[in-house]
Amino acid sequence: MGNADYDQYSPHRVEVPPPKPFLTAVKASIKETFFPDDPFRKFKNQPASKKVVMGLQYVFTILEWAPKYNLNFLKCDLIAGITISSLAVPQGISYAALANLPPIIGIYGSFVPPLVYAVLGSSRDIAIGPVAVASLLLASILAKDVSPTDNPKLYFQMALTSCLFSGLFQACLGFLRLGFVVDLLSHATILGFMGGAATTVILQQLKGVLGIKHFTHETDVVSVLKAVFSQFHEWKWEPAVMGCGFLFFLFLTKYFSKKKPSFFWVGALAPLFSVIVGSLLVFLTHAENHNIQVIGHLKKGLNPVTVSDLAAIFKSPHLSTAIKGGIISGVIGLAEGVAVGRSFATVKNYHIDGNKEMIAFGMMNIVGSCTSCFLSAGPFSRSAVNFNAGCKTAVSNIVMAIVMMMTLLFLTPLFQYTPLVVLSSIIIVAMVGIMDIPGVIHLWKIDKIDCIICLGAYFGVTFGSVEIGLSIAVIISLLRLILFIARPRTLALGNLPNSSIYRSIDQYPSANNVPGILILQIDSPIYFASTNYLRERISRWIFEEEDRIKSSGETSLQYVILDITTAGSIDTSGIGMLVEVKRNIDRRGLQLVLVNPRSEVIKKLDKSKFIENLGQEWMFLTVGDAVAACRFLLHTSKPNPGEEKSKTPDDNA
Amino acid sequence: MGNADYDQYSPHRVEVPPPKPFLTAVKASIKETFFPDDPFRKFKNQPASKKVVMGLQYVFTILEWAPKYNLNFLKCDLIAGITISSLAVPQGISYAALANLPPIIGIYGSFVPPLVYAVLGSSRDIAIGPVAVASLLLASILAKDVSPTDNPKLYFQMALTSCLFSGLFQACLGFLRLGFVVDLLSHATILGFMGGAATTVILQQLKGVLGIKHFTHETDVVSVLKAVFSQFHEWKWEPAVMGCGFLFFLFLTKYFSKKKPSFFWVGALAPLFSVIVGSLLVFLTHAENHNIQVIGHLKKGLNPVTVSDLAAIFKSPHLSTAIKGGIISGVIGLAEGVAVGRSFATVKNYHIDGNKEMIAFGMMNIVGSCTSCFLSAGPFSRSAVNFNAGCKTAVSNIVMAIVMMMTLLFLTPLFQYTPLVVLSSIIIVAMVGIMDIPGVIHLWKIDKIDCIICLGAYFGVTFGSVEIGLSIAVIISLLRLILFIARPRTLALGNLPNSSIYRSIDQYPSANNVPGILILQIDSPIYFASTNYLRERISRWIFEEEDRIKSSGETSLQYVILDITTAGSIDTSGIGMLVEVKRNIDRRGLQLVLVNPRSEVIKKLDKSKFIENLGQEWMFLTVGDAVAACRFLLHTSKPNPGEEKSKTPDDNA
Repeated sequence: MGNADYDQYSPHRVEVPPPKPFLTAVKASIKETFFPDDPFRKFKNQPASKKVVMGLQYVFTILEWAPKYNLNFLKCDLIAGITISSLAVPQGISYAALANLPPIIGIYGSFVPPLVYAVLGSSRDIAIGPVAVASLLLASILAKDVSPTDNPKLYFQMALTSCLFSGLFQACLGFLRLGFVVDLLSHATILGFMGGAATTVILQQLKGVLGIKHFTHETDVVSVLKAVFSQFHEWKWEPAVMGCGFLFFLFLTKYFSKKKPSFFWVGALAPLFSVIVGSLLVFLTHAENHNIQVIGHLKKGLNPVTVSDLAAIFKSPHLSTAIKGGIISGVIGLAEGVAVGRSFATVKNYHIDGNKEMIAFGMMNIVGSCTSCFLSAGPFSRSAVNFNAGCKTAVSNIVMAIVMMMTLLFLTPLFQYTPLVVLSSIIIVAMVGIMDIPGVIHLWKIDKIDCIICLGAYFGVTFGSVEIGLSIAVIISLLRLILFIARPRTLALGNLPNSSIYRSIDQYPSANNVPGILILQIDSPIYFASTNYLRERISRWIFEEEDRIKSSGETSLQYVILDITTAGSIDTSGIGMLVEVKRNIDRRGLQLVLVNPRSEVIKKLDKSKFIENLGQEWMFLTVGDAVAACRFLLHTSKPNPGEEKSKTPDDNA
Repeated sequence: MGNADYDQYSPHRVEVPPPKPFLTAVKASIKETFFPDDPFRKFKNQPASKKVVMGLQYVFTILEWAPKYNLNFLKCDLIAGITISSLAVPQGISYAALANLPPIIGIYGSFVPPLVYAVLGSSRDIAIGPVAVASLLLASILAKDVSPTDNPKLYFQMALTSCLFSGLFQACLGFLRLGFVVDLLSHATILGFMGGAATTVILQQLKGVLGIKHFTHETDVVSVLKAVFSQFHEWKWEPAVMGCGFLFFLFLTKYFSKKKPSFFWVGALAPLFSVIVGSLLVFLTHAENHNIQVIGHLKKGLNPVTVSDLAAIFKSPHLSTAIKGGIISGVIGLAEGVAVGRSFATVKNYHIDGNKEMIAFGMMNIVGSCTSCFLSAGPFSRSAVNFNAGCKTAVSNIVMAIVMMMTLLFLTPLFQYTPLVVLSSIIIVAMVGIMDIPGVIHLWKIDKIDCIICLGAYFGVTFGSVEIGLSIAVIISLLRLILFIARPRTLALGNLPNSSIYRSIDQYPSANNVPGILILQIDSPIYFASTNYLRERISRWIFEEEDRIKSSGETSLQYVILDITTAGSIDTSGIGMLVEVKRNIDRRGLQLVLVNPRSEVIKKLDKSKFIENLGQEWMFLTVGDAVAACRFLLHTSKPNPGEEKSKTPDDNA
């Protein structure tokens, strides 16, 4: 093809992007990988003093919003703070029970951590406190090593140490900007995992509702049901009746609040109301002597400092279990917290910095572990109540912390008669709210594999353990990514009628084949994992096209156009594959034509001399250009591409 | 935008592909994943009798080519077969030594396995026999569990059992069409791994060359060098002088053969010649009494049957080590063999079925393990000699097997005086040939990450162990795949002058921004791993564009066009991300425009109601169409996209 002909069909040519110095390229790619949001953008072109202020504001987010705080905000935050406090006591006690910890620890967890978060965190709506799923996860890991009933002191110390490591790990993720570890938990994974965890938590509550005293520490469905039914003789009717009553009440108020959002406070106050009514009932009827278990005596006073407890575990052989439990439950807590924060931020249209959130969560757990708290995060239920109550800033967390401080100092004796069955009812209602069956159906409708991931997580958690469920989901998710690259789709393109647009024939059945030309599109980067597949698949396309042509008697195949627009990258194995494909196509007497290789790909193809070998004139910017040129050649003569190429002027190569 | 306007700018619309029944879709995707080459295509529309014949031919490849075999082929194969036989004896003995096995086992390995391969295999050029790297790998795994010097019988049994499991694993991969396990070893991985293995093998030969008797079983550089220098008092000058002499001779003949390809037989016969000369030298000078170690007595006779030896290991506690060794060395042997077969097939232009090759390799090792053979594969050096000697079919392997049979029956006593140092020299020369330093430099030039993978494998093998090296390389390779998806590039597109083509501004610096419109392209599937990144990155693009516009005083930003041509797939997390991005863009008073979602993506966007929410009229088939429509709206009025949308006629939605 002469130069003039070439220009006629492709006024624009594929360009090799201007080379970048190696270090610049490395710097750019590190920036894209770790600082996609460019957090230091605002610092540019600012005087040094301003930079210091901005730096402090970046670390202590409270400095950013506190100066703009006003009385109006305070009014809203006060109401929201008091509302979530009413939820904090029963939830804290319940979740502490899930983690096999004494009730008072759950209340401690709503005092110190919210204060730390209020200083550092960037979400305005999240409410801080213990979370159900991470508590259960922690318990299931720690209880394998140390029995919470036989050795409660050691177990408590382990929980604190885990909390410390959760915090360290979370803060590290934030500092090293490795937020994408949390990204590995996809929406589908979290949905299935939460559902599974909720199921196991509900089953665990059968212990409280049926008043069983001897129970299993396993969390899977089979063990729990076995434990429930083998202890049939321990079943009591009193807690069962009381539990059903409270369950009915709680579900009813929740349903009512959902129907009428302005009455959200009915649902929010119901748990505290249940606790008060339940305690009064027990106090008045002395039901604690009639098979109703109660919380019992709670120590008055603020969180004791627990640095020495941490030190004790550092010297013990249980350290590795504590670290493992801390990291796993920390990731789960973080994932839930960040997701909760992000969703409310989207609704109210403000920005949340994921890495900063991780640091805030991390610091809050580090401080918490030194002050008798176990793992805290942002529980969805409490945050939703906070949001509905109209909170404006993290001051609502401060208000809750102050109310909790009052409770710890003066009100703990009031909970002495609170029946455990009320707490079980509160947990069950919260957990039923977590299970999202329409969400799973939605997944099935839209994306089958996501649904499989979700069900994998669910059944892994309910029939195996929390870790098994998580591993199954993460492994399937990653396999899917790898499979996308290892088995890229190759599509045949056709011409849309009356246009020069070429699109997949599968998607646009009206698209027409171009006689004598096979147009293929490769759908993913050409990496080592896909090279063998692509080689086989491309030769099968050619085979099948030649078969089809033979039977239909069309113009015989002359050109194979490979549109690699959608192949974003290539590695050396991929280049080797292209070389082999070209050799195969040459040997069949056909001509390979390349369309729109993009910067990454063209750079490497150029350096590896593939372009030189193919001939610059067989590379086009659009499929339309390529087809026009091939058609021209098909009509003027039936060229032998080999001969054709030898005619190519050198200045094109 | 009215219907008429819309049609004016986009005569073609994005189509949702016709729905496929669920089972058809699953079947198609299984076919693409496991049967990309459609091996049963030929069977279609054939009578039953023909199908049986074709089936037999498919399994026993020999039936396919034997009928066409002629005298001319036989002549070529005879010459090639005899030539590779001359290589088989010294190589077999040397590689058996690498695997810590008695020399005779190496010769057995060139008798039975080549016969099995000749019946089943589809490569015409591969020459079967023990391979250096897999032998070393096997030894390094087995020797950790059982000492080959203290308990040679058990070690031998372990090697046989490993061979059995290599075979089973290879055959399974083939039957289950899981060839992509081998694909995980990219070109770069194999390059680095082979280089590292060659380095350690060469270092191991210092034992033979320096005549050291007490040596280490470790394979890493540090341990080996320590062993060499700590045994300084054992060094002998006689083997060193002899070794250097033969090394010089072998390198010289190899260099000569490379320079003049028609004299390939000089290089091919040099090892046998060295063995003969070395043996004669020892026999005549009685050098075996002067510190020259020799092979010693070899048992006459064909391969003994070893089923009982396999049975012994099945009952022992060493079974798991044998399985591990078998699987790992089997994969390596397979990867080398398939790669070798494929390269020669490409040169001679015939097709190799990877999955069939795996079955052939597997069967050959299963049979081998029952007849005193350890792991066999297709060593590159021997296959290259076979190819150069002009082999036509697998008959050259049969010829070699017959020559080996003769050797075993009558000639083994001749090797009694063969000095070990000659074998060491032969190995060293072969291993230097494997190391491909220009290949590594080529990798660095073209693809830095591939080079890092290669060096990771190399240093992992030389300073750690063969397994560490492999793991490093495979993990980096997979991380790269995941990173490609987790951190997709987003590109700003511009208009190429005098065209309606839009391309990345980075690659085409002449491309122009379109005032008031930001055009972005996303480079990879939108999966859970990238959603957070993409959300941040897209909002940063908008930020930066608005900053730029503010400082330059251009038309303010009105439209954000997202070209998702290159996003081949999406999951539910990805859809969630798009919803959030749309909400963000809406809130800034901008309009999101989607370009060319392809079948997978549009199907899911449609089902999840995203398209309905966006408005069908904001989706275009090409960037050109989208820009034209946006420009029209920009010029006629400065629309508030929100208002604009409410004017949309219903039939468009």
